[in-house]
Amino acid sequence: MSETYDVVIIGGGPAGLTAAQYTSRSRLKTLILDKSKNAGALAYTSKIENYPGLQKPISGKELLDIFRTQATDFGAEYIEAQVIGASLTGQIKEIFTMDNSYLAKTVIIATGAMGRKAGIKGEAELLGRGVSYCAICDAAFYRGKTVCVLGNSEEAVKEAGLLTRFAAKVYLITPQSKVTAGGYEDVLEIPNLTLLLGHQPIEIKGDDAVKEIVLKKKDTDEETGLPIDGVFVYLHGSKPIVDFLNQEVKLGDEGCLLANEVMETSIDGVFCAGDVTCVEVRQVVIAAGHGCMAGLSAEKYINNRMKRKQDWGKS
Amino acid sequence: MSETYDVVIIGGGPAGLTAAQYTSRSRLKTLILDKSKNAGALAYTSKIENYPGLQKPISGKELLDIFRTQATDFGAEYIEAQVIGASLTGQIKEIFTMDNSYLAKTVIIATGAMGRKAGIKGEAELLGRGVSYCAICDAAFYRGKTVCVLGNSEEAVKEAGLLTRFAAKVYLITPQSKVTAGGYEDVLEIPNLTLLLGHQPIEIKGDDAVKEIVLKKKDTDEETGLPIDGVFVYLHGSKPIVDFLNQEVKLGDEGCLLANEVMETSIDGVFCAGDVTCVEVRQVVIAAGHGCMAGLSAEKYINNRMKRKQDWGKS
Repeated sequence: MSETYDVVIIGGGPAGLTAAQYTSRSRLKTLILDKSKNAGALAYTSKIENYPGLQKPISGKELLDIFRTQATDFGAEYIEAQVIGASLTGQIKEIFTMDNSYLAKTVIIATGAMGRKAGIKGEAELLGRGVSYCAICDAAFYRGKTVCVLGNSEEAVKEAGLLTRFAAKVYLITPQSKVTAGGYEDVLEIPNLTLLLGHQPIEIKGDDAVKEIVLKKKDTDEETGLPIDGVFVYLHGSKPIVDFLNQEVKLGDEGCLLANEVMETSIDGVFCAGDVTCVEVRQVVIAAGHGCMAGLSAEKYINNRMKRKQDWGKS
Repeated sequence: MSETYDVVIIGGGPAGLTAAQYTSRSRLKTLILDKSKNAGALAYTSKIENYPGLQKPISGKELLDIFRTQATDFGAEYIEAQVIGASLTGQIKEIFTMDNSYLAKTVIIATGAMGRKAGIKGEAELLGRGVSYCAICDAAFYRGKTVCVLGNSEEAVKEAGLLTRFAAKVYLITPQSKVTAGGYEDVLEIPNLTLLLGHQPIEIKGDDAVKEIVLKKKDTDEETGLPIDGVFVYLHGSKPIVDFLNQEVKLGDEGCLLANEVMETSIDGVFCAGDVTCVEVRQVVIAAGHGCMAGLSAEKYINNRMKRKQDWGKS
C-alpha cells in the first residue's frame, strides 16, 4: 500500500501524458500507470506528420517519448504496470496492478481503444509497416498506391471513401455478402473503389512492408493473393479499454466512457480522456486536448473549486 | 471575386491552423484569413512550455510559425487580412476583407478571444461614432483629423503607424512607462505620431461623435482632456471575437460561439474552434483539438458524409 496520490492516471498515451503534464505542473502529486511504453494506438504508428507542432514527421514512439519527458520533467511519476482493477466510488480511490495497489484522490482514465487483438496472420508483425488502423492518420502516405480496407462497418466504408482520394486503387473487403452500413451508397460508386464481398482475409504478407493480402472466397477453399501496399483494418472497430473497471463507471452504447465537456465521468473525482471516451474521431491532438481538460478538472476538484456539479451525460 | 474554396478559415491561431492542416491534408482547397501573424493570444505569449510535444520552452510566435508551416506545407493558402464581415447562411458562404471577398462551401470560425468589453467610460456609447477597434477598417474616415491609439502591443503600434498615413496627428497612449513591443522603432519616429507614456485613459467624451479623451497621468491625480476625433482601442481582454458575424451565428450568454461536440455551429456548413467558442478553459492544445475536429467535420460536410444532423446545443 502506497501513500495517497492526488491524481492517478491510467494510461500513458497522449491523453494520459497531457493530463499528467497539467496536474504535475499544478504541483499535484501525480502517478501515471502505463501498460507499456510500446503499446497503444500512437506507439504503433510508424510515422506521424499531422500532430500540430511537429517540424518533421516522427514515429509515434518518438512523440510519446517527448510527451512522457514533459510530464516527468514537471514532476509526474511514471510506472510501467498494467491496471487490472479499480475501486472508484469512494472518497479515496484504489487502483490495482498485478504487484501493487495505489490510492488516489482523483483518477483519470485514459486507457485508449486498442481493444481488438490483431487477429489476422501477419497483422501484428506488419503493423506500422503497411497495416494501419487509421485512414485519417495514414492515407496521405498511400498516394498513388493500392490499399484495402477490411471491414463492413460505417467507419470502414467511410474510411475507404477517404482513401479513394489518395490511393490509386482501394479494395473494400468484407466476409459478408453485402455491405450492411447504410447511407454510404455514394462511396461504393467511386470509380477507384472495388468492392470484394464474401472474402475472408487469411494472411497479410510482406517483409519490410506489406506486399500481399491472401483472401479466401466464402464457401470455397479458393485462396487468392492480392498485391497490396496498405491494409486498413476495421474488422471489429477499435474497442475502448474499460474491462478493468468492473462496470462502476457509466458507459455509452459502444462501450465507451461517457463524459461531459469537462471530462467528468459518472463518478465524483473520476475523469477520462482520449480514445476510451465516446469521442467522434480518434486523433492525437484531440486526445491531448481531452487530457488537458481532464487534468484541469482534477485539479479543480482537488482544490474544491468545482462549485457547480455538471451534468455528466454524453456531451 | 475569387474562385470558391472548400474551406475558408477565419483566424490563424492554433485552432485555425490545425483545422487548416486537416482540411488541406484531406485535399480540400483551404484558405486561412489571418488578421496578423503577430496578433492573438498565442502570438503575445513570450514563452510556452506546456504544449504537449514541445522539447523545450519556445515563444508563442515560434510555435505559431511551426503550426502555420505545417498547414501551408499540406497545401493551405495563407493570407494576412482582417475579416470585416461575412454572409454565412447560404449554400455558398461569402467572407469579406477590406480589399476582397472570398467564396466558400464551408467556413471555420477560429478568431479567438482577445477582444474585450468596452471598459472605458464613454467607449461603448461612442463605438462607431469615433471609437473603433480596427484601424484597417476605419483609418480612411480620419483623413486630416486627430486620433489616438490606446495600447502597447505590436498590433497597437502597427495600427498607429497605419493611422499616421491618414490622420494629421496620431497619439499613441499607454499606461506603461515604455513601449514594450519590439521591432517597430521606425513607427515611433514618424513625425505626426506623438507618444504619451504613463497615461491611463479615463473617459471618452462626445455626443454625435468623439470630441475628447480624458487621461490621468500615472502616479498623480492630474487629469487632462485631449481634443480628439477618433479613439482606436487595442487594450486586450478575453472576449470572443465575433463582431464581424452580424449576429448570424447563435451565441452563448457570454458572447461565445455555441458548438456541439463536433464543432458545428447553428448554421449548416459553419464550424468553429478554439477560444471563440464557449470552452471552459483556454489552452493551446484544447484549441488545436477543436481545430482538428472542426476540420474533420468540414471535410465530412463537403463530402456529403454527414448523414445525421447533430443537435448543435452547447456541448
